[in-house]
Amino acid sequence: MKIGVVGLGLIGGSFAIHARKHFANAQLLGSDHNKTHQEQALSLGLIDGVLSSEDYNDLELLLLAIPVDAIEQHLTQFLDQIGPKGLIIDFGSTKAAICQQVANHPKRKQFLATHPIAGTEFSGPTAAFESLYFKKTQILCETEKTNPELLLLAKTWFEAMQMELREMDPVEHDRHIAYVSHLSHISSFMLGKTVLEKEKDQSTIFDMAGSGFESTVRLAKSSPDMWTPIFKINKNFVLESLNDYIRNLKIFKAAMERDDFEVLYQEMKQINRIKTILKGITDKNNTYGK
Amino acid sequence: MKIGVVGLGLIGGSFAIHARKHFANAQLLGSDHNKTHQEQALSLGLIDGVLSSEDYNDLELLLLAIPVDAIEQHLTQFLDQIGPKGLIIDFGSTKAAICQQVANHPKRKQFLATHPIAGTEFSGPTAAFESLYFKKTQILCETEKTNPELLLLAKTWFEAMQMELREMDPVEHDRHIAYVSHLSHISSFMLGKTVLEKEKDQSTIFDMAGSGFESTVRLAKSSPDMWTPIFKINKNFVLESLNDYIRNLKIFKAAMERDDFEVLYQEMKQINRIKTILKGITDKNNTYGK
Repeated sequence: MKIGVVGLGLIGGSFAIHARKHFANAQLLGSDHNKTHQEQALSLGLIDGVLSSEDYNDLELLLLAIPVDAIEQHLTQFLDQIGPKGLIIDFGSTKAAICQQVANHPKRKQFLATHPIAGTEFSGPTAAFESLYFKKTQILCETEKTNPELLLLAKTWFEAMQMELREMDPVEHDRHIAYVSHLSHISSFMLGKTVLEKEKDQSTIFDMAGSGFESTVRLAKSSPDMWTPIFKINKNFVLESLNDYIRNLKIFKAAMERDDFEVLYQEMKQINRIKTILKGITDKNNTYGK
Repeated sequence: MKIGVVGLGLIGGSFAIHARKHFANAQLLGSDHNKTHQEQALSLGLIDGVLSSEDYNDLELLLLAIPVDAIEQHLTQFLDQIGPKGLIIDFGSTKAAICQQVANHPKRKQFLATHPIAGTEFSGPTAAFESLYFKKTQILCETEKTNPELLLLAKTWFEAMQMELREMDPVEHDRHIAYVSHLSHISSFMLGKTVLEKEKDQSTIFDMAGSGFESTVRLAKSSPDMWTPIFKINKNFVLESLNDYIRNLKIFKAAMERDDFEVLYQEMKQINRIKTILKGITDKNNTYGK
């Protein structure tokens, strides 16, 4: 069995580690436009060789772990080239534009759109690790449009990885993910910007920043190569979430300006119920190896 | 030696653990307006008995670990009551109003204003732990106004705790801390609010939120009892930081609206340099016991 992986970073690399375990005797071929990453993936043993277009006809599985704009740009071409038994799975963080792209492709049945809710702020093949997807949600879109046998192959694999499968409409996916993930990144990047602009002397940040600032600004370390395309492709829902966020900040600010601290107190009390939800997420993430 | 601790939560409780180690044979007396916390602190052995106003005359050290508005309200009265050899230290998160409050008090020399840059999102005496202050910055304000012998007593103790001492003007402290700490809390609370408003079905947050959202929204678990007074007392600087933050969010939004993703890319690249600063903070925090 031949498996191709396009994009050998954190996401593709971590899936490659599992593919090798799950698909006995599979030959893993990979490519990355970053040649250093491609070399690293080879020397780390994530892949056995370099993937080239001549291989596409023989692939049983082609995994796309590249930025969402690159998926949108190349997916049609990958589907054109894949052999009659192959399945292409993408792991992009937005889903509507990608599904739309191939909606009428004659080989639509050989494609499965997914979004694994997993990642760290690190990137590249050296960041890949085995437990990245353990107990993480794997969103599957438009499963009825994928060939049932190929879908079963993919679902069986994801379940073996102990991922938690959830089906979702691609547009609904993009709307929710804008709030729950994309907005966090913007709020964190802009917090980093605001503090860096104000504090020219970095030693002040170093001395005065506690673990709270560190946690809130963590996502400002994320890769612009990954995130610029996400904001571009999910523009409308991201703007909607950003408008809501700015409006809430202005409401908070207005209450402060009129010294209405009782309102702020009650509001923070309400928001505190996020504790329960976060506890669920933490508990879920802490069960690896247990 | 008699030591008093007013406020037996995370901050006061963790200082009490160290006071017992550092000041041999000290008798620790404490009080908290939350009687459950006071009972817990007694049964956990953080304190030996309940502090009452009759004790003030004999205290060599009185630690104030209560919300900043309570410090501002009661500090004069505590100074009035403390015996001639006692030192009062406050650990409040704002410093200008507190220093101003006692600027002309006849016993000003018996007071030291500090801000330990340490905390977690948890509260109460059960949250107190020994390593909370290890390698953490301890800001000292207006040290020239404290009796040198009493100042030495405090500094020797903080150094024994391996805290990193830094002197700072109280107004400058409040300006910097608004950006580096207070703003993070507002950005996190408002992120929590925006997501909770949108996602009525909590299972969607649960399934779709990764570790990124969890990290960014962590401070939204913080106690409104602690944070409302901070926003109130540091109102001007917090509003300044909030204005800067909202302006940056609007600039980001405007670039998205006009499809100027190259500007966003370059901006995120710039902000990525926060990595270096955060690495320093993480390294510092990870050396306990090493």
